[in-house]
Amino acid sequence: MEVLTVISWFFLPLLLLVEPNGAQYQPTWESLDSRPIPAWFDQAKFGIFIHWGVFSVPSFGSEWFWFYWQKSKARPYIDFMQKNYPPGFTYQDFAPHFTAEFFDPKQWTEIFAASGAKYIVLTTKHHEGFTLWGSKNSWNWNAVNVGPKRDLVDEMATALRTYSDLHLGLYHSLFEWFNPLFEEDAANGFKTNYFPTTKTLPELYDLVLKYKPEVLWSDGDGNAPDQYWNSTGFLAWLYNESPVRETVVTNDRWGLNSICHHGGYYTCTDRYQPGHLMEHKWENCMTIDKYSWGYRRNAQLADYLTIEQLVATLVETVSCGGNLLMNVGPTHNGIISPIFEERLRQMGQWLKVNGEGIYNTTHWRVQKDSVTPNVWYTSKPQEKTVYAFFLEWPNNGTVTLSDPVATQGATQVALLGLGPLQWKPANPSGLVALLPPLPYNQMPCLWGWTLRLTGAS
Amino acid sequence: MEVLTVISWFFLPLLLLVEPNGAQYQPTWESLDSRPIPAWFDQAKFGIFIHWGVFSVPSFGSEWFWFYWQKSKARPYIDFMQKNYPPGFTYQDFAPHFTAEFFDPKQWTEIFAASGAKYIVLTTKHHEGFTLWGSKNSWNWNAVNVGPKRDLVDEMATALRTYSDLHLGLYHSLFEWFNPLFEEDAANGFKTNYFPTTKTLPELYDLVLKYKPEVLWSDGDGNAPDQYWNSTGFLAWLYNESPVRETVVTNDRWGLNSICHHGGYYTCTDRYQPGHLMEHKWENCMTIDKYSWGYRRNAQLADYLTIEQLVATLVETVSCGGNLLMNVGPTHNGIISPIFEERLRQMGQWLKVNGEGIYNTTHWRVQKDSVTPNVWYTSKPQEKTVYAFFLEWPNNGTVTLSDPVATQGATQVALLGLGPLQWKPANPSGLVALLPPLPYNQMPCLWGWTLRLTGAS
Amino acid sequence: MEVLTVISWFFLPLLLLVEPNGAQYQPTWESLDSRPIPAWFDQAKFGIFIHWGVFSVPSFGSEWFWFYWQKSKARPYIDFMQKNYPPGFTYQDFAPHFTAEFFDPKQWTEIFAASGAKYIVLTTKHHEGFTLWGSKNSWNWNAVNVGPKRDLVDEMATALRTYSDLHLGLYHSLFEWFNPLFEEDAANGFKTNYFPTTKTLPELYDLVLKYKPEVLWSDGDGNAPDQYWNSTGFLAWLYNESPVRETVVTNDRWGLNSICHHGGYYTCTDRYQPGHLMEHKWENCMTIDKYSWGYRRNAQLADYLTIEQLVATLVETVSCGGNLLMNVGPTHNGIISPIFEERLRQMGQWLKVNGEGIYNTTHWRVQKDSVTPNVWYTSKPQEKTVYAFFLEWPNNGTVTLSDPVATQGATQVALLGLGPLQWKPANPSGLVALLPPLPYNQMPCLWGWTLRLTGAS
Amino acid sequence: MEVLTVISWFFLPLLLLVEPNGAQYQPTWESLDSRPIPAWFDQAKFGIFIHWGVFSVPSFGSEWFWFYWQKSKARPYIDFMQKNYPPGFTYQDFAPHFTAEFFDPKQWTEIFAASGAKYIVLTTKHHEGFTLWGSKNSWNWNAVNVGPKRDLVDEMATALRTYSDLHLGLYHSLFEWFNPLFEEDAANGFKTNYFPTTKTLPELYDLVLKYKPEVLWSDGDGNAPDQYWNSTGFLAWLYNESPVRETVVTNDRWGLNSICHHGGYYTCTDRYQPGHLMEHKWENCMTIDKYSWGYRRNAQLADYLTIEQLVATLVETVSCGGNLLMNVGPTHNGIISPIFEERLRQMGQWLKVNGEGIYNTTHWRVQKDSVTPNVWYTSKPQEKTVYAFFLEWPNNGTVTLSDPVATQGATQVALLGLGPLQWKPANPSGLVALLPPLPYNQMPCLWGWTLRLTGAS
Repeated sequence: MEVLTVISWFFLPLLLLVEPNGAQYQPTWESLDSRPIPAWFDQAKFGIFIHWGVFSVPSFGSEWFWFYWQKSKARPYIDFMQKNYPPGFTYQDFAPHFTAEFFDPKQWTEIFAASGAKYIVLTTKHHEGFTLWGSKNSWNWNAVNVGPKRDLVDEMATALRTYSDLHLGLYHSLFEWFNPLFEEDAANGFKTNYFPTTKTLPELYDLVLKYKPEVLWSDGDGNAPDQYWNSTGFLAWLYNESPVRETVVTNDRWGLNSICHHGGYYTCTDRYQPGHLMEHKWENCMTIDKYSWGYRRNAQLADYLTIEQLVATLVETVSCGGNLLMNVGPTHNGIISPIFEERLRQMGQWLKVNGEGIYNTTHWRVQKDSVTPNVWYTSKPQEKTVYAFFLEWPNNGTVTLSDPVATQGATQVALLGLGPLQWKPANPSGLVALLPPLPYNQMPCLWGWTLRLTGAS
Repeated sequence: MEVLTVISWFFLPLLLLVEPNGAQYQPTWESLDSRPIPAWFDQAKFGIFIHWGVFSVPSFGSEWFWFYWQKSKARPYIDFMQKNYPPGFTYQDFAPHFTAEFFDPKQWTEIFAASGAKYIVLTTKHHEGFTLWGSKNSWNWNAVNVGPKRDLVDEMATALRTYSDLHLGLYHSLFEWFNPLFEEDAANGFKTNYFPTTKTLPELYDLVLKYKPEVLWSDGDGNAPDQYWNSTGFLAWLYNESPVRETVVTNDRWGLNSICHHGGYYTCTDRYQPGHLMEHKWENCMTIDKYSWGYRRNAQLADYLTIEQLVATLVETVSCGGNLLMNVGPTHNGIISPIFEERLRQMGQWLKVNGEGIYNTTHWRVQKDSVTPNVWYTSKPQEKTVYAFFLEWPNNGTVTLSDPVATQGATQVALLGLGPLQWKPANPSGLVALLPPLPYNQMPCLWGWTLRLTGAS
Repeated sequence: MEVLTVISWFFLPLLLLVEPNGAQYQPTWESLDSRPIPAWFDQAKFGIFIHWGVFSVPSFGSEWFWFYWQKSKARPYIDFMQKNYPPGFTYQDFAPHFTAEFFDPKQWTEIFAASGAKYIVLTTKHHEGFTLWGSKNSWNWNAVNVGPKRDLVDEMATALRTYSDLHLGLYHSLFEWFNPLFEEDAANGFKTNYFPTTKTLPELYDLVLKYKPEVLWSDGDGNAPDQYWNSTGFLAWLYNESPVRETVVTNDRWGLNSICHHGGYYTCTDRYQPGHLMEHKWENCMTIDKYSWGYRRNAQLADYLTIEQLVATLVETVSCGGNLLMNVGPTHNGIISPIFEERLRQMGQWLKVNGEGIYNTTHWRVQKDSVTPNVWYTSKPQEKTVYAFFLEWPNNGTVTLSDPVATQGATQVALLGLGPLQWKPANPSGLVALLPPLPYNQMPCLWGWTLRLTGAS
Repeated sequence: MEVLTVISWFFLPLLLLVEPNGAQYQPTWESLDSRPIPAWFDQAKFGIFIHWGVFSVPSFGSEWFWFYWQKSKARPYIDFMQKNYPPGFTYQDFAPHFTAEFFDPKQWTEIFAASGAKYIVLTTKHHEGFTLWGSKNSWNWNAVNVGPKRDLVDEMATALRTYSDLHLGLYHSLFEWFNPLFEEDAANGFKTNYFPTTKTLPELYDLVLKYKPEVLWSDGDGNAPDQYWNSTGFLAWLYNESPVRETVVTNDRWGLNSICHHGGYYTCTDRYQPGHLMEHKWENCMTIDKYSWGYRRNAQLADYLTIEQLVATLVETVSCGGNLLMNVGPTHNGIISPIFEERLRQMGQWLKVNGEGIYNTTHWRVQKDSVTPNVWYTSKPQEKTVYAFFLEWPNNGTVTLSDPVATQGATQVALLGLGPLQWKPANPSGLVALLPPLPYNQMPCLWGWTLRLTGAS
């Protein structure tokens, strides 16, 4: 096919760099979907998403600022621009103000590590098309030429590699709202593919070869089918030949209708929370700022989720087989604001006590207790251990777990961070864990607690 | 005296505006110091300090940015400027970037009210000399001509007046680091007074007449004696004739050596915390950001005091007879950042339970318990009530108060937010309050607790 | 009088610097007007006016930009701002863009010297109030604090002093359109004088003491009488005690109704051209750009006077006893644009040939020939020489001068730059000068020519 | 060949737009060079070159600013940047300041028409790569997205079309100094062609189809051969199928070694002036500012050629068979500065008198008089007329033309703008034209004069 000819020609030098190794996977969904997700990902459970880009300059409304302003013509955006900027100011004019002068990747990484996250996903290019690395295919619309004058992806990747248990993930948007080549392809009903061949695909290969990500977080199909994006061709290369073919994980946003159906793990929708077990590995990507992925200068305290809400989200997500990808939006000058830092460190404090029931666990036969509200389960089958999380401290000092089958003498119950607890059988089934009257200063943690059950089933 | 002639001539129109009423106070410290501090101030206990100005634009290092950079030639400031700004960039060039586009005084005031504060002190002019109102004596170096293009003092004052229990305070620096007229007077050993007659004094009168503050927070004597500033003359007018003569409170920073000796309440030093009772009414002004009064863009979470530290500071301060003035630094675009908002709202939550022992109280005969650490007292003599604050929840469930004289049958002990407690006599003196084994979810509050003693002495 | 008391107190240090020398002049117009204008000024004939300031940044419309925009609300100015600047942009916001990065006072002075000018008058402060030197009384609204970060007056003065025949003149506006202290005085019917005592007068003294100008070009009375400005007091000091008391020349703009009546030489109106002899020494200040004194970025070629028009203006002005002060407006970055440079150098070329009839001359008994149009006279009585300028080359090769009384044998006629000419008596009076048929390449000059008559009366 | 496959695929939509018409020309130099240059071009003789782009923002040194600063590391450029800009400021950061707010294409065109020029060549994209139209292949690095926010090429083209005798020419640089795709191709020894297929060629087609230029002024081969650029393929399309195939003229800068050898007319070098007749049609492109094609803010008067020099250049160029393309550099805000306007209008004045000997002429058998210096010839063979230009007015009133063969009775001599002249035979050959003793005010023109000879050979 003509298009494939072009691509193979275009990447001739790239293709020569890699050793073909027998082409395990074919460029078909059937073949690609058969690849098991590398184990590290399910064990990691908790990652941090970072939305950073030119949108961090207006940092008003949302990272979809450009779209809402210029495509939706939404009133608040138009008013904001009219009030604060000269006539004719374009989104592109924000780019020089994306300065990142305080960006210290070591500082960021220290915070991420302290949060208990095991992987970090950075927006290397959002729908605005601005690349956070010095892409050759995005000349003068990337962070090395304009704004920071730094390769932010490289700096972030380098800092992360000093932590052995932090995996690098790269977010990448297939389409770009206002790229005229994409617009032309779209106008042609995606029968031409000027855009993927000269922008999307070269950049995807470049990202993988340069930064060797272990998560490739694809997004933004622009209503175009995967054939247009040549997604299966790219994924076959990624799985067969790329330098990260053994460990890389990807998601399901690779073209119209692929979401929740094809690719690596499923994301389905933003803030996806099914509330029940999903067969296929999935991820709940969500935001600490309820209303935006990108930083908002005028966000109020009430706009941020509380640590209690965040812990509850993590627990529910992991119980149902998902990973949690929790988003922060740094400022245009490279700061993770203290309110984000606080939430991240609080999460880390909580995980220090309760991580045993999160990391390296798998779902249990029941996710949510059948009787007691806000109780969620995980398990470590090989250790015959079940973990039960309860999110409210009970008034009566007892937590009833109705689903485990407990046996006097065999079953042991402990509160993580504290130690063994008394328990008694519950009626008609399960057990009642008896919490000691812990004064405030002796609580092992706040915001949520974990019961470890051994010898139960 | 020549100088007085000038001043009286200069303010002729002002002086005609006010009705002399018998000139109760003379322009001498002896007379002025005899004025009682209006009662509302001691009852209020807790205020919020706001440092906002051109320094909020670099928002780097400290609100003393200009001084450290240009007078001290401190390395970090010089490096910061060299790295980020063109050669020849002056401090004045920051002013147009003080935009305040998100400044919403109603939003601010709602937060302040929620914090439990009873007065607000805004920097109308810091040592940089930039006035936050449209001062005629500071043409083109004020917020109406440059930067916000708004009268920030007026907007703040107007918003505050909608809350009947929030008093307006205005901070004002006598001297200005780089004002050439001040420099000239200084070079003349303060024998000339070009600066106070054409800048400081007209602006002080203007502030009082326009905004009618109930706190006038003077600062920055520039090593000049009060005679140079004509402070006693101004205060006599303030106390005798100004529109706020009945209610206005001022502090002690009115000239070299006046601090901690003359004026209204004492501030002595920044972050003053004597640890014992002060005879004269005093105020502890301190900052949530440990290192700066002005906003710092690159402050980290660890730079902010925790709510536990803030509550402890309030308790100690009030016990020793002081008021607490807790500072926040808004951003150049008019935002009180969420971490500050969180601390303020936490303080308000705490005061909702414990305010009974704070507001309208007076010191007790003992400030700090003689035996148990971190226990502080206040009292309401007319109600024969003593309040004891303890800042750590005891491991053993008991709090020993060694100083109150308790009597079985007469003395009653209660935990604010909960209700009556059992107590028993302590040995050799005092009482032991017995805390119930409160589970976490039934705590009346966190971070500090208050015992109310009635029938004790 | 109260005001005088203030002033004398205010300038006490200044007054001590100067030696009283017998107070030749009283602070009354009668006395001041009796001072003869120092001779150098009448001999100089030709000066250059420089309008430079914050108005050079918008450089649109006129140096009255601020006034037309904000006071007159003139449509073109409002439209210009709305089209090109964000809402809320103030005139003050232009100041940081007054960069002067290419300002090279040596280069300027070389051009001025080449133009044949004998004095230069620089706007040290126009009605906008922005001072081009580091005035202590104009803190943060002067060229040292904001914009150039250089003392432009000092640099210009220093460069000029290397040319022995270039005199330094300083333009200074008494009033300032938007200075709030001036506005207050105006609102008080000029019964208060906050503004002159704290701004105008200190700055006038400062200018004279620092830069020792030989022309002090006052402007802008703001409809206030000279008493308000204390002009006579200042002039008495200038004439009696200032360091330039021997040589300084000033003009007539010192208060309402002083123009064309009191002070030094008369200016009467901008572009004053009476067309006949004035008894009192006067000056025609005019602009090469017909429409503006300040630079206009969008001026077209047709907006600039031609060299023919400029030569004609000089000739007429000098004939009638005036000096010509020809204005150029440098750009905000410190350039005298090539079109101005061209006009100035052309004037210099012309004066190199014809200067003999301009410099050090005086008016003749007739200014304009009674019969032949566009012929003007000057004279050097002590050398018994008359100069006749003709501005159009005659078709018939003859120039009829009807006013000189010529005598065969005694009277000699020469064309400057060429040499002796034949002449014959004219009828009924005067003489006819016979021009040789000069080919183009042998013309002594273009644009205007001078006949020297000796032995005529 | 692979590359051709790509190109044909890439431009499929374009190719479908045009009607093949028999493919007169093959994509070989042999075939392309055989195309006659459309007649209008040789008749036009005089065009105006416009260099405008992001380089007009620094407008310092030269339009090669970026290259000298970043590739050559030339001291003056590095110093200029260090003195005036913050560290890390990139060339790209200049783009938002390319505002063009005063750009009025009607005003420009009126000036161009008044200059006597017959074609205008605008830099649609210089080596910086920034396109002055909204190129889809130069997203965010073009005048519609950044800076002017206007399609400058479209506005210029539209304004020109209102003048029937002004032809539109578009300058276009093949290579781009810093385009990473070009750099990659260069590093690959031009064996890859990512750059021409995705940038140069699409843009060339786009320019021709959108703006229908009659001159396509190619430049900047970047040391790459024409095969790399696929120049012959493009030119075959241009000559065979493009909408301007009948009238378009192009030059010779289409790849390494094509200059002065292949393509349309020859340019050979900048400011090419062979001094003798060239067989092949050629053009002398030169600049009014001696040192730069782009505007220089700090250019001095002496840096501009005088009108005498410009007239002399035109005369010599046309005599030797060339066209003159005289360059002006507009400012970043869209102004043709008055000094340029003056030169252009002077040229127009001169051509109004002398254009008869310039437009629609051809070279004569002699270009430069064999004896008299600075005399140049043109001719109109069909009218049997020879024109002789002399650039200095002779002292003796005679001009000797030694090359024409004149015949008493048959030969007539006239001075353009004046009328018939007497002449006499010269010795040993030619004729002597006798100029009347014209007074200055009766000269038909200045700066150069034309003798028309009829009946001579």
